[in-house]
Amino acid sequence: MGNDALSIARDLIRCPSVTPADAGALGVLEPLLKNAGFDVHRITFSELGASDIDNLYARIGTTGPHIAFAGHTDVVPPGDEGAWTRGAFSGDVVDGLLYGRGAVDMKGGIACGVAAALDYLAAHGGQPGKDGSGSISFLITGDEEDIAVNGTVKLLKWAAARGEKFDHCVLGEPSNVEDLGDCIKIGRRGSQSGTLYVDGAQGHVAYPHRASNPIPDIAALITALVSEPLDQGSAQFQPSNLEFTSVDVGNPAANVIPGQARARFNIRFNDHHNQQSLRALVEARVAGASGNRMRTRIVWEPSNADVFLTEPGPFTDLVAAAVEDVTGRRPELSTGGGTSDARFIKDYCPVIEFGLVGRTMHQIDERVPIADLEKLTRIYRGVLDRYFA
Amino acid sequence: MGNDALSIARDLIRCPSVTPADAGALGVLEPLLKNAGFDVHRITFSELGASDIDNLYARIGTTGPHIAFAGHTDVVPPGDEGAWTRGAFSGDVVDGLLYGRGAVDMKGGIACGVAAALDYLAAHGGQPGKDGSGSISFLITGDEEDIAVNGTVKLLKWAAARGEKFDHCVLGEPSNVEDLGDCIKIGRRGSQSGTLYVDGAQGHVAYPHRASNPIPDIAALITALVSEPLDQGSAQFQPSNLEFTSVDVGNPAANVIPGQARARFNIRFNDHHNQQSLRALVEARVAGASGNRMRTRIVWEPSNADVFLTEPGPFTDLVAAAVEDVTGRRPELSTGGGTSDARFIKDYCPVIEFGLVGRTMHQIDERVPIADLEKLTRIYRGVLDRYFA
Repeated sequence: MGNDALSIARDLIRCPSVTPADAGALGVLEPLLKNAGFDVHRITFSELGASDIDNLYARIGTTGPHIAFAGHTDVVPPGDEGAWTRGAFSGDVVDGLLYGRGAVDMKGGIACGVAAALDYLAAHGGQPGKDGSGSISFLITGDEEDIAVNGTVKLLKWAAARGEKFDHCVLGEPSNVEDLGDCIKIGRRGSQSGTLYVDGAQGHVAYPHRASNPIPDIAALITALVSEPLDQGSAQFQPSNLEFTSVDVGNPAANVIPGQARARFNIRFNDHHNQQSLRALVEARVAGASGNRMRTRIVWEPSNADVFLTEPGPFTDLVAAAVEDVTGRRPELSTGGGTSDARFIKDYCPVIEFGLVGRTMHQIDERVPIADLEKLTRIYRGVLDRYFA
Repeated sequence: MGNDALSIARDLIRCPSVTPADAGALGVLEPLLKNAGFDVHRITFSELGASDIDNLYARIGTTGPHIAFAGHTDVVPPGDEGAWTRGAFSGDVVDGLLYGRGAVDMKGGIACGVAAALDYLAAHGGQPGKDGSGSISFLITGDEEDIAVNGTVKLLKWAAARGEKFDHCVLGEPSNVEDLGDCIKIGRRGSQSGTLYVDGAQGHVAYPHRASNPIPDIAALITALVSEPLDQGSAQFQPSNLEFTSVDVGNPAANVIPGQARARFNIRFNDHHNQQSLRALVEARVAGASGNRMRTRIVWEPSNADVFLTEPGPFTDLVAAAVEDVTGRRPELSTGGGTSDARFIKDYCPVIEFGLVGRTMHQIDERVPIADLEKLTRIYRGVLDRYFA
């Protein structure tokens, strides 16, 4: 077991920690961090109807400034393992590429964070800042890829209850799109799903005047909702977007006009909205398009994916400078893509996401160039250098 | 067992002949017709995967003019029998109303036809026309309410193979809407179902630019197809009508843009179209609305319900006069409503539909006023009087 990113990443990949299994993954990190002087906590969270999940919190230092590295050791299932060039949990290296589920999402990212911290501490007498100031911590969960009820949300609450205060957080999700250094995520759109119901009156197709067909009505509402943009985008975000994901009537009878139609949709929304204002906007648009002519209603689904944004500023500049120093490119500050645990962390401190390149995540033959692991470790080391300078 | 319409109708109703069961219904008619001099044939038709069905063909006379009464003795299920005021197969008479499944659709109509024929023959020395000319026949099937494969279609073919030629046919379906005498059906619209498929490209809702959502496309096509009428109606028909009966995607994932959407529709079409021209018209409209921008296709369902029309003329005048003579009102010549076995008969001879009032058909407490049975018998008798005059 070595302290370098490749060794740590291999050891992590060899634990088949498909959510909710830990499979020894946190046990790879615990001794490394303890040996470096971290105070390490292993916490298991439970919830009725969900699997118990292992989590890890480690901190070195007792004062601010306090920077946290966040991540998850759980991975999505490997899919057809026979289709992999190398075993999904082999951690084999071929032609400079480390293969395995989690290589980029995100055991590789965690490995780089730990390696960078150990390297930094070794170079600074085992202390984060000067004169005993400053703290570095790791917030590592095993419940990110699935329902995420026993992971980061509870770990943050647990830490807050202990009095832990974070000043900044780097989440090591694979933020880069094509090449290491192309993208820092400083925000994510919110996500809100709902189902639009249109009620008509059932009847026989031969006597349409005695019925009211909800299908042309819902078609008109779908057209209305996708035709008018929800906004024009904001300084940091692309325009919010509504996508219909299903339309269903389920009427098997060719001679029956159905009584109801429903259409499910998902909205990825930017910082022009919060969930409440967004729902009101969509409901107003439906009311406007139906013109009191239709009987409609929207059933909104619960969502814990509100929009978040860490405004560009000194912290994002610091991370961007560390990236540019290693990669030679200034990363884009992006808010695109799906959701992540950053949506929970943002309630506690400013958070950005920077990790490996996401191209092979969730795919057969997920893999990472060893060169990327080395570069990302140097970037994180550069972040720590600048943070405590 | 009596020869009057009420007695025959009661005897028929007491046979629980829910398709495909005959339950003795044709056996009620056979002796009555034989005693009156009819040559009676009982024919059972079979089809792989379908139930064997009893049919009856009876003819008196050997030459033209040849008028046929057509009908079916099978009935739809009674539904919740406990909800009936009187047993669904009781044939009870309460306050001048005969209760039972089939009272109007269409055991009552058959009873009136048989009673009228027996009455007519008794008054004319047992012969249809003068000097031994003319023929009266009954084409009675037990397979109309369900899949209708072993009924009128095969009975007509069987008769044709025997050399039977019909000059005119009266189908005793409940053609009247509100009152006996308000409506003769001289045609029916055709029926054609199909499913419109729109293919897109599946993807993640967070990355809509990498996907192509078929839902807004199918919504636009639905709007286009229902917005522009298929025609403006014709001399005898209301405008053709297209109704969407279902729209389905069946995508359970809130974060996935689906790859395909489908919408099923049914068209009731008039004599501006046949099935081929109708299909071409709809396909052209879809192509026009999709503007080569969408990948669409229509899968047409087999249909044996082509449009039919018996042009108004001497035969419809004759029936209308008989109706007016009894009811005091000139019936409307209608082409509205659903399909019937007339769509098959029209290939052999001009056919009209005139029977009882359809209001309670297929419902709990299907029933017919005894007065209507008496009147309809007199109308049919009037038809025969005029036909052979």
